[in-house]
Amino acid sequence: MTSPMTSSANRLLFGAAYYDEYTPASAGEDRLERDMKMMVEAGFTTIRIAEFTWGTWNPAPSVFDFTHVDRAIDAAAAHGLDVIIGTPTAAVPTWLAARHPEVMGVNAHGTANKYGPRQNMDITAPAYRYYGEQAIRALVAHTAPRDNVVGFQLDNETKYYDAYNADIQRAFVDWLKERFNGDLDALNAAYGLNYWANRINAWEEFPDLTQTINGSLAAAFDFFRRSLVTDFLLWQRAIVDEYRREDQFVTQTFDYEWRGYSFGIQPAVDHFKAAEAVTLAGVDIYHPTEDQLTGKEIAFGGDINRSLKDGAPYLVLETEAQGQMGWLPYPGQLRLQAYSHLASGAMGVMYWHWGSIHNSFETYWKGLVSQDYSANPTYLEAARFGAEIKEHAASLAGLAKRNKIAVMVSNEAYTALEWFSIDSGFPRQVSGGGANYNDVFRLVYDALFEANLEADIVPADAPAERLARYDVLLAPALYVTPEQTIANLRAFVSGGGHLVTTFRTAVADENVQVFTDRQ
Amino acid sequence: MTSPMTSSANRLLFGAAYYDEYTPASAGEDRLERDMKMMVEAGFTTIRIAEFTWGTWNPAPSVFDFTHVDRAIDAAAAHGLDVIIGTPTAAVPTWLAARHPEVMGVNAHGTANKYGPRQNMDITAPAYRYYGEQAIRALVAHTAPRDNVVGFQLDNETKYYDAYNADIQRAFVDWLKERFNGDLDALNAAYGLNYWANRINAWEEFPDLTQTINGSLAAAFDFFRRSLVTDFLLWQRAIVDEYRREDQFVTQTFDYEWRGYSFGIQPAVDHFKAAEAVTLAGVDIYHPTEDQLTGKEIAFGGDINRSLKDGAPYLVLETEAQGQMGWLPYPGQLRLQAYSHLASGAMGVMYWHWGSIHNSFETYWKGLVSQDYSANPTYLEAARFGAEIKEHAASLAGLAKRNKIAVMVSNEAYTALEWFSIDSGFPRQVSGGGANYNDVFRLVYDALFEANLEADIVPADAPAERLARYDVLLAPALYVTPEQTIANLRAFVSGGGHLVTTFRTAVADENVQVFTDRQ
Amino acid sequence: MTSPMTSSANRLLFGAAYYDEYTPASAGEDRLERDMKMMVEAGFTTIRIAEFTWGTWNPAPSVFDFTHVDRAIDAAAAHGLDVIIGTPTAAVPTWLAARHPEVMGVNAHGTANKYGPRQNMDITAPAYRYYGEQAIRALVAHTAPRDNVVGFQLDNETKYYDAYNADIQRAFVDWLKERFNGDLDALNAAYGLNYWANRINAWEEFPDLTQTINGSLAAAFDFFRRSLVTDFLLWQRAIVDEYRREDQFVTQTFDYEWRGYSFGIQPAVDHFKAAEAVTLAGVDIYHPTEDQLTGKEIAFGGDINRSLKDGAPYLVLETEAQGQMGWLPYPGQLRLQAYSHLASGAMGVMYWHWGSIHNSFETYWKGLVSQDYSANPTYLEAARFGAEIKEHAASLAGLAKRNKIAVMVSNEAYTALEWFSIDSGFPRQVSGGGANYNDVFRLVYDALFEANLEADIVPADAPAERLARYDVLLAPALYVTPEQTIANLRAFVSGGGHLVTTFRTAVADENVQVFTDRQ
Repeated sequence: MTSPMTSSANRLLFGAAYYDEYTPASAGEDRLERDMKMMVEAGFTTIRIAEFTWGTWNPAPSVFDFTHVDRAIDAAAAHGLDVIIGTPTAAVPTWLAARHPEVMGVNAHGTANKYGPRQNMDITAPAYRYYGEQAIRALVAHTAPRDNVVGFQLDNETKYYDAYNADIQRAFVDWLKERFNGDLDALNAAYGLNYWANRINAWEEFPDLTQTINGSLAAAFDFFRRSLVTDFLLWQRAIVDEYRREDQFVTQTFDYEWRGYSFGIQPAVDHFKAAEAVTLAGVDIYHPTEDQLTGKEIAFGGDINRSLKDGAPYLVLETEAQGQMGWLPYPGQLRLQAYSHLASGAMGVMYWHWGSIHNSFETYWKGLVSQDYSANPTYLEAARFGAEIKEHAASLAGLAKRNKIAVMVSNEAYTALEWFSIDSGFPRQVSGGGANYNDVFRLVYDALFEANLEADIVPADAPAERLARYDVLLAPALYVTPEQTIANLRAFVSGGGHLVTTFRTAVADENVQVFTDRQ
Repeated sequence: MTSPMTSSANRLLFGAAYYDEYTPASAGEDRLERDMKMMVEAGFTTIRIAEFTWGTWNPAPSVFDFTHVDRAIDAAAAHGLDVIIGTPTAAVPTWLAARHPEVMGVNAHGTANKYGPRQNMDITAPAYRYYGEQAIRALVAHTAPRDNVVGFQLDNETKYYDAYNADIQRAFVDWLKERFNGDLDALNAAYGLNYWANRINAWEEFPDLTQTINGSLAAAFDFFRRSLVTDFLLWQRAIVDEYRREDQFVTQTFDYEWRGYSFGIQPAVDHFKAAEAVTLAGVDIYHPTEDQLTGKEIAFGGDINRSLKDGAPYLVLETEAQGQMGWLPYPGQLRLQAYSHLASGAMGVMYWHWGSIHNSFETYWKGLVSQDYSANPTYLEAARFGAEIKEHAASLAGLAKRNKIAVMVSNEAYTALEWFSIDSGFPRQVSGGGANYNDVFRLVYDALFEANLEADIVPADAPAERLARYDVLLAPALYVTPEQTIANLRAFVSGGGHLVTTFRTAVADENVQVFTDRQ
Repeated sequence: MTSPMTSSANRLLFGAAYYDEYTPASAGEDRLERDMKMMVEAGFTTIRIAEFTWGTWNPAPSVFDFTHVDRAIDAAAAHGLDVIIGTPTAAVPTWLAARHPEVMGVNAHGTANKYGPRQNMDITAPAYRYYGEQAIRALVAHTAPRDNVVGFQLDNETKYYDAYNADIQRAFVDWLKERFNGDLDALNAAYGLNYWANRINAWEEFPDLTQTINGSLAAAFDFFRRSLVTDFLLWQRAIVDEYRREDQFVTQTFDYEWRGYSFGIQPAVDHFKAAEAVTLAGVDIYHPTEDQLTGKEIAFGGDINRSLKDGAPYLVLETEAQGQMGWLPYPGQLRLQAYSHLASGAMGVMYWHWGSIHNSFETYWKGLVSQDYSANPTYLEAARFGAEIKEHAASLAGLAKRNKIAVMVSNEAYTALEWFSIDSGFPRQVSGGGANYNDVFRLVYDALFEANLEADIVPADAPAERLARYDVLLAPALYVTPEQTIANLRAFVSGGGHLVTTFRTAVADENVQVFTDRQ
């Protein structure tokens, strides 16, 4: 699989997520047809479907009914719209939770989550994987042959959901055994487990991790759990690859630290590693609007997602249309936001979502149209953007950047600074919070933005050759610095590069053990 | 049962709750006698006893010892005081919790409450009902024949205590089956359960509700649980009816949203329906005093309680005397408060409570006298009020109101705005709170109060004929509006009525599904 | 055992806690030797070791390996340093938690603590006592014969860790049976259990205490649990006594209410009773520094610890060196703090700790030297103090005070005011906090400090003869006053003493039952 691009490479993607499944009866039999017409009138090229709808088309084990999926694909085809198919695994159906309660995640308090929310499962649970594979195979086999299906989205905003299930902890112990060649003395020394008698003297006495006070052990557990996310996406990718055409892309809705909007790097996923599971990096990017709109979150989200596949165009799979959370754009802002995405290197913009749901959790996280489906000002402005990009498609498609500045980010630094907080030195969760890793990252990133300096984002384990492309490297709060990273940074500077860093950099090794040299 | 009035209809009720059970030995053998004397000197007509004392007179299954109850009734009789008998079921005895731990409520975290607090049980638990019925029968059979027993109070401030016990959830599923005629498609469509794969494809896979994210399902569960409160009170009423005389009333201590004082409508009880279980509406009404006294809470509590039995006089079963919570009245305030109750239509005022307890939870929620039982200024002012109403009993008794303005309230709107909060559109519990239903209700109610406009309160399911009595109807934040309510409001306006409403009105149907018409 | 003094009675103790166990490999093979040299250069006389290292030298049941302990004692001996040996029981090893999960404490939510933090066990659990005794015997037998071992520290900052384990609750019921001679009526009357049906009619129906609403019962439970702490320390003392020499002292790290620093009396230990388990009162005292340094916490900590053994010198076992929590002293402050300790009657000052750990929880609660072990300004200032006291040892050692003012403190008043809070009258935990007992205590104590009036601290159960030594007695917020205390206070005043008290004094008896006399 070599081409990351859509089957319609000569046009930009523009569209929204669409859920025929959620349309209420009161909207009328012809709602689907009327929606398609409005979308075409707005210049849409693409819809995204099926994500989160597991319970609808797989209502019982081995029972599949793709009525809603087919209706949407058929209607899209009839109106010349492309379709992205999302695998549904980010929300388990009621029957799976009822028959296999062990698929629910065990939370940080040591108790199993209850059914209800999405994204609360153990992504390694065999029953979840077993029935998830059945569902993915059935859906992809059913939809891949359709001409207007241009790509597949794996799961949704996958993370490890802070799950502490016994099987995950056991797998972590296995991983540690391998990492330390079975040498418990080495493990105890690396993580400083002699402290407060936490020393582990036998593998079978490895304690549950929910109340650990050892930041090194906890950081290793989070590192391991981030690898589970990558593994999970690679597992889905392999299944999808058995069915998809070469011209169909594979993507994921990568998302970022959430503060009511996308703020900084995602602690629970190593996006640079997870991006290996996709052919096209996708992003869910939300940001303040109205008076709070600055463009910084749009730029940051674009810079990191563009960097995931080494500069290739990325796709905005979700961004805000309107909504109660201060998100009803002022006149002109919706277009401004959309052009900002393109300027960051996006090959398309898709809203979450088309209509607004009439029940349940996200009723006021509105779509492009409200519950009354009327052509409101937000829709009309989207339509104006749709018309403009259709006119200028040739000049807007395939934009690329070659920046000379990069900001180095690190999930490991993020985790470590949760345990050894900037403000107190104690875990942020118990010491009242204060600034986290992303606050420092954004301090640096925002300074670049305000100076109008464009930047890429690179991971702390980027190879020396990748760093060498840049003139300037900024490494905010790089608390954890493995020997290889130090070597790469030395090489970068020796080669004439400029390295700018901040407090709390190069404090500890990859085991979050503080260095003994003079600081 | 036709007469809701006391056996002493020609005099107003004035008194307090009294607990011989709580009197410490250090108060002396003659404390009961001295208390009675002080009460008579204060113009008391009535005491209220037995509520919460289950463990004292029913110390083991089938063992009853009414020593304290008899002492109090005898002493009251000897001093010409009437007695209201409260059933004790709002606090279970230690033996019941020890023998039948399943009577404890299961809370929103899915764990069973522990013994200790009152009002933490599953009001539908068979063991609770079984032993509760024994206790009620024994108490009422024992006391109903007494001449000075004028009425019975069912339980205390009954609610469903946010219990999620499995038997309650199972009964809810049965209720849904009946409501949707067993049609799961209809249920899924009405509640929008396709969203996030929450679709229920088999009744036996119905999930536990503690972590649901579906506001429609949760609202239906709360509606169902409010009906359990009504059922519970009707069950107690039926038992009491087997023993009481015609001249003995049945009442309940209806109470309101608690913000350190009574603020707005009660979310966990449909008072208009629950009032069918009583012959006389009772109210527990607490409010700010000292500089914070405005009278609004007194007026609101009176207006709603008077409206519960369609304008009939109601009884203040509890209101504050003094207490640490900013409740020590300035000179004159205690009388002002008492007259305000009468002005709202109360047929009597009773304090919670006579003495102040010497141990346990409410030591500083003081009674009329403090722990030293001396004739303090609060007592002396109560006595002045007692003397005044004795003098003017003929003109003060049986006051009635005929208002031309009504405010329409809705438990269903309250619940819905908890899930779709005014501030964020997300559940108040997870989005930082903000204004709730009662904030809007009180905005409207308080504006009337300040304009010196008297009002009744009517429920959203009031019949058209009842609405037709009014010139003006105010419907604050009536988020949920069933078709029948819409029809009744149309009829009201067609008939010349003035309807005033606010934002967040007529947004959703009775299933909390947002309407699809233009808003 | 008569001598509470060190084997080197003619010199002051000066030193720090030392953990060879925690030293990382990157610090080098010669780190121990270099540390000893630096300590000697700083004028150190003593190190404190072994506390919290159970898992290191007792890696499995019956397996002991004292390599680190011996290395530290040997190195200290070679450099003329004395050693205090701490028993390790404040943190259980992984193998104990894995094999006997019942040693973990059950918390106020009724769930068992997980492994990880220190001080989260049930200090009465038989398996904990059984293996704890093995460990203490092995350690003390191994180290007591060493010449430079000058004393033993029992456990660390022992408390009852708010454990609600079933065996503790059962033991409490046994204690109540004895206290009330098996008379449940007496118990119900004393604690006011008739309230809200909490009456206990059979011992076997005694409820779990995690959700009790009865402040008298809860206060009795806390009183009982404080006695468990004393019992625990006496148990350790008896074991240590079997091995130690007469010249070896026994001490404990008594600590105080924690508000980010030592604020007031310790609610979970009756220090005056617990001090019977030691020959030398020790104290862990932390306080604000930099601009916040006032000396009040140093003085308070000293006054109470000096009072524990009736005026005998006490030992500062832990105080801050530097650290991220606003604890990096300004130039001169470290010496100022150390002299303040001596002025309060301390016979020595020891820092927690020497080095700074490189992993785990307290990385930024730094020792005298940082993770790089370099001679920083804090170390250099400590060295200056070390040199000064060596020069003036003769005049500084064995200082004593004879104060004429005392402040009376009470654990029982503390607990009672948690349940009947000063601000609201309701439990502080549910009513939003507000001032606690120590706020009033410190109001009084700080006023003395500011007036430059020195004081001792006496417990509420101090005998009349002890009170008679003073001219002035201050009793802040002495909410609970048993008859004996009242008698002693009357005798004190009759004898010419001046008694100063505050609001919330003499409100309730020893059962937290409010008195019925006029207040």
